[in-house]
Amino acid sequence: MKAEIITIGDEILSGLTLNTNAAFIGDLLSQNHINITASVVVGDNENDILEAFREAFEKNDLILVTGGLGPTHDDLTLDCIVKFFNTELVKSEEVLRDIHKIFAKRNREVTPANESQAMVPKIADVIRNYNGTAPGTWIEKDGKIFVSMPGVPFEMQEMMTGYVIPRLTEEKLEKKNNRITKSLLTTGIPESYLFERLGDLEDLLQGNVMAFLPSQFGVRLRITVDGESREDAQNKLSRIEQKIRTKVGQYIYGTDNDTLEEVVGKLLKERGLTIATAESCTGGLISSRITNVPGSSQYFERGIVSYSNGAKVELLKIDEDMIDKYGAVSFEVARLMAEGVKAVSGTDIGLAVTGIMGPGGATFNKPVGLVYIGYCDEKMCTAREFRFGDDRLRNKDKTAQAALDMLRRKILGIEYEE
Amino acid sequence: MKAEIITIGDEILSGLTLNTNAAFIGDLLSQNHINITASVVVGDNENDILEAFREAFEKNDLILVTGGLGPTHDDLTLDCIVKFFNTELVKSEEVLRDIHKIFAKRNREVTPANESQAMVPKIADVIRNYNGTAPGTWIEKDGKIFVSMPGVPFEMQEMMTGYVIPRLTEEKLEKKNNRITKSLLTTGIPESYLFERLGDLEDLLQGNVMAFLPSQFGVRLRITVDGESREDAQNKLSRIEQKIRTKVGQYIYGTDNDTLEEVVGKLLKERGLTIATAESCTGGLISSRITNVPGSSQYFERGIVSYSNGAKVELLKIDEDMIDKYGAVSFEVARLMAEGVKAVSGTDIGLAVTGIMGPGGATFNKPVGLVYIGYCDEKMCTAREFRFGDDRLRNKDKTAQAALDMLRRKILGIEYEE
Repeated sequence: MKAEIITIGDEILSGLTLNTNAAFIGDLLSQNHINITASVVVGDNENDILEAFREAFEKNDLILVTGGLGPTHDDLTLDCIVKFFNTELVKSEEVLRDIHKIFAKRNREVTPANESQAMVPKIADVIRNYNGTAPGTWIEKDGKIFVSMPGVPFEMQEMMTGYVIPRLTEEKLEKKNNRITKSLLTTGIPESYLFERLGDLEDLLQGNVMAFLPSQFGVRLRITVDGESREDAQNKLSRIEQKIRTKVGQYIYGTDNDTLEEVVGKLLKERGLTIATAESCTGGLISSRITNVPGSSQYFERGIVSYSNGAKVELLKIDEDMIDKYGAVSFEVARLMAEGVKAVSGTDIGLAVTGIMGPGGATFNKPVGLVYIGYCDEKMCTAREFRFGDDRLRNKDKTAQAALDMLRRKILGIEYEE
Repeated sequence: MKAEIITIGDEILSGLTLNTNAAFIGDLLSQNHINITASVVVGDNENDILEAFREAFEKNDLILVTGGLGPTHDDLTLDCIVKFFNTELVKSEEVLRDIHKIFAKRNREVTPANESQAMVPKIADVIRNYNGTAPGTWIEKDGKIFVSMPGVPFEMQEMMTGYVIPRLTEEKLEKKNNRITKSLLTTGIPESYLFERLGDLEDLLQGNVMAFLPSQFGVRLRITVDGESREDAQNKLSRIEQKIRTKVGQYIYGTDNDTLEEVVGKLLKERGLTIATAESCTGGLISSRITNVPGSSQYFERGIVSYSNGAKVELLKIDEDMIDKYGAVSFEVARLMAEGVKAVSGTDIGLAVTGIMGPGGATFNKPVGLVYIGYCDEKMCTAREFRFGDDRLRNKDKTAQAALDMLRRKILGIEYEE
């Protein structure tokens, strides 16, 4: 089965909106072993949309379209579907009920523009929208499948996972169960170091494939293995994974869709540990990430964003002389912040960061990108120096990631390499 | 001038990585009135890459390629450039120096894999990389321009803004100065309401174009105006903007690339006001956003992430009986949190949120998505109820946005519509 993704919207072509939809759909199709031949973006223009429909319908078995289904004047997809399939629009009572339900829940009145979204192509099966007003449509013609979904990522995602993929896998897909993909998520080691540490990749992979996918959060190693059978593929993958873990295991915090905050959350919960954070330069990003995890209130007690020195002194009980002596961005203050937040919160662990995120704030001895992360538990209070780059927002991300990774290492007793 | 963007990488095609590069490049080209004919994604496969080069080179005047330039085995772009242009690789001493410099700064040793990145195509001009190791290349042939850049967004972005666009606009572009684009950024009003409130769009726009671009942060209204001259376009745009502001001005917090945290930061600084935050459900996201703005230490004093009730009582001096009586997620507690954090911090303003982000935590009377935002200054202490959706992370984003918008409204004295 060959598939094409068509994304509709001037805002995608001109870069105002990221094409997260193509990424999400690409990921789901790959997971289900559907071959993606192309991913095309067209603007809000009837001729371009119809032309894209024609070309995609000619070359593929499955066409997935997102965008252009909203209630405003520049939403042309439905008109194009009507023209392309030579059909007409009919009112769906089911969709109308859904629209009224969603507005009732939000305490908002339904407008005529909202109600107009209950019109659907006559030849289509409706894909209900549980998160918004525009329904999706599933059309089959000439043995091919044409699916149209809203461009709002959240709405499209629910339709893909809740309707499109289940219906595809049930009706159409021959599952190729002898291919397995797994990602190992590393942090704290640059791509080039990882590459050299892993040594001869051909020897490691034995004809299988691995991609290095770097970001400011670390490097994702994505391994794809083919086997004679699913079990064979599984065995091969295990052997490769084992070899990688032997070489760089300490940097691997999780697999596939794990997040570092989930990983440390699980560790804290398993061990019955509680934590509090004290943040200066990250401004609350670390506590925000920790609390992204449902149920984090079981282990996260509080966070202090001690941006001013006064807040450090008052809330974390840090001796003002220490700040004067070493500076707010220092090994000593990071350690004291961790110790202080642990003490005032009565938690098992205190985690703290202080650093210079840029663009301002640097001194001769303390450049932009300099960060100290402090950690304190019942056995030790310590800190560690990190050097990041020049970009404020990337530095915040890197600092938060390094702090959560330090927490992971400390809980698991994994020493840093020097 | 017609342009095509080619993004190389299996990780993009299969959706593991978002194509932020195509978006960034599309945006810059649009701003510079370069017509983008297509945006194509190809995998890490030599034949596919070469085929994409051929097709793009045939149809366009400018080809911008990102990705596939890293130090690992699946980086094929450079080999493909050598084949496509029938050239060879030579070592660039300038690039080698840059690589050594960047590693020295990060206190890391240069590896052979890193050094190999100093090899560049003989016929290319080098685009220096100030943020990483792989250089970009600029090749001119048959009156066409072919640019290759690394896939790391940060590195590519610097090359686009620092080298490619300046060189393009200097050498090649005829600026069409009679087209102007401006975005008005709204929040707190759904797309369909905005649409109806604006009334007859044809009458409003007089042949010009406006797009509605919704996200969890609000709806961006992007207006594109053509005029007889740049001045004429500017006048037309001003008239349209004025009409829109008359109708929905209270929801517009900024324009173009403004962020709400920058907008409120500027307001606070102008008025010499200081602020502290108390967050429950957002876990530090609001303070993190406030401190994304360079120089925010001038007005942001501290943030309290009072996740536990104990932290609310201890750090914000809230009467425990009030929490027992109204519940932690309530109008009253939100107001008291704002009042409390203002008092303990000694700031001019206290901003607080408490809510149920989901998936757990709902009760019969308090559904997931229920949020109270508290605000306190020297004249008033108040709170406001909001109803968001079911998704935890989107709810966090919406809550932070609504809180910052409440801050904006209060400082500017803009009442909410009921």
